[in-house]
Formats: sequence, structure tokens, C-alpha cells
Amino acid sequence: MPRESSLKRREPTTQFEAPELMFAELDGLLGYLLRRAQGAMHRDFMAAVSDFELTQKQAAALWLIHANGGVSQVEVAAALGMDRATMMAVTDRLEDRGFIIRKRSSVDRRRQELYLTPSGQSTLKKCKARIAEHEEKFRDMFTASELAALLEALKKFQTLG
Amino acid sequence: MPRESSLKRREPTTQFEAPELMFAELDGLLGYLLRRAQGAMHRDFMAAVSDFELTQKQAAALWLIHANGGVSQVEVAAALGMDRATMMAVTDRLEDRGFIIRKRSSVDRRRQELYLTPSGQSTLKKCKARIAEHEEKFRDMFTASELAALLEALKKFQTLG
Repeated sequence: MPRESSLKRREPTTQFEAPELMFAELDGLLGYLLRRAQGAMHRDFMAAVSDFELTQKQAAALWLIHANGGVSQVEVAAALGMDRATMMAVTDRLEDRGFIIRKRSSVDRRRQELYLTPSGQSTLKKCKARIAEHEEKFRDMFTASELAALLEALKKFQTLG
Repeated sequence: MPRESSLKRREPTTQFEAPELMFAELDGLLGYLLRRAQGAMHRDFMAAVSDFELTQKQAAALWLIHANGGVSQVEVAAALGMDRATMMAVTDRLEDRGFIIRKRSSVDRRRQELYLTPSGQSTLKKCKARIAEHEEKFRDMFTASELAALLEALKKFQTLG
């Protein structure tokens, strides 16, 4: 069957078929490619940890609270680059699900310390195993030196964020 | 003043000071670094185009519709990797703001064609100039060969998305 030449008359056979549009350099933009790459990895992350119903932000918070028992909400937010409102929503959700507890500091009564519950610890452990597989899948696309260069390049973005 | 040794007694002086938490390899994860890099670039994008109140997705859709006059919503969605609902929200918003129009195809009555209005064209043109400056800022962090390698690496992610 001859390929149709006119875009206007072309009907994609499924909604997932990517039509051959003119990108007019959009797909050469660093910002565009970064967003698409993050979108791809985000979808795979959500599928990998779907049993636990954790978002990337919630998983990262759980990870950091575990590694820094007694840390405050403000400290986790700063380390992860989240604003106050986002961090509040994340910790509320993790607390509601019984994964973390808030404890008032015995040293400074104004300070609330965050800790993982046993359920939070067990979930994080299982979640980390899934994340490791998910990471591996993407890392495997690169040679060791390509991967090292990519990680180094990605770290630089935070200096401009 | 001696640096305090206990994390628990450490009070950040501002909410923006990143405390020195243990990352326990979280910041070595490709997924984590990609999300942070995208976050940094997204914030800068939003600031760069703030006059136009366009999201990255809306700007990308405007860009593609301009380069492919008469394209359908389904085709733009597939090219940008957006699902139907997201694309619908994007085109509704662009139409409400008078940047695009929907026209029924004279060839296929079931097909709706998308076109930029003069206002959409003028907004896209101004927006592209801001995006070019925003891109430049991030590209400037890299040498030409580092940048080429980074763009190449980012393109690979879509094969797994």
C-alpha cells in the first residue's frame, strides 16, 4: 500500500502511533528532551512501585527520613528541593498511611522529628528493591562512562535551579 | 562557632538552607537526578515565559501545531507523548485563550484540524525568543561535546518510556 503523502489525509491506525510531524527543532531543545526523558522514567517508576502506591516524592522523603531518623520536615524539604506546601502534603500522606510518625523533640519543643514506623521501614525496603530494578533497566542503556557523564551532567542542573 | 555534631539539635537558619543530610545513595539514582534536573529546568522555564502564562506542554503543543497547520489533536498528543485527557485540556486552554482554532476538515468530516490564530502566532514567536534564552543558560554549562552526549543520552529514554 503506497504511503500517503499528505499529513491531512493521514489517519493514525491507533491512538499510540506517533505521526511523522515536523518538530521544527522542538526535539532538539534540551528542555523538551529532559521533560520527555523524565516522563519516560516517571511512568516506569510508577509502574515499578505500583504495589506500594508511592509517588517519586513520597519515596524520596521516606528514603531520607529513614537515613536521617529524627530529621525535621523543613530539613527534608530543603534537601529534596520541595516547597513547604508540597512537603506538608507528602508527610501528611506518609503519616496517614502509617509509614512515618511525628514526634516532638525533647531538646527543642518547637521541633517535630520524623521517624519511620516498622511498616514504613518494611515498605521502603521492598520499594528499594523495585527501584533498583527500575534503575538498572535505564542504566543498562549506557556504557559505564556514558552513565558517569550523564549523572555528572544532571547534577549540574541544580546549580541553575 | 563550633559546628554542631548532632543533626537533631541543628536548626537551619532559613527554610532554604539545605541541611547536610545523609542521602544514602538516593542522590546517585539516575531517576532522582533526572527529576531534580527537570525540576530545575522547569522552574526556569516557567519564570522565562511567565508573561505568557504557558506551561511546557501548552508551549510544545503551540509549537507543533504551528509547524504542522491542520494537524489533529490525536497526532499532536502522540508526537508529544501525552494522553488523550491531558491533550484535551491543553487544546481547550489554548483555544479559550484564542491561540488556536479547531476547524472541521473538508476532506474528512470526522476530523478536526488545529491551526494557530494570529494571536497564537505572535505569542509563540515571543515565547520562542524567551525559550531560546532559557535554553542557552543551561546549554552554557556544557562544552559542545558534553552537550551533544547529553542530548543523545536523553533521547534514549524514550525508547523505554
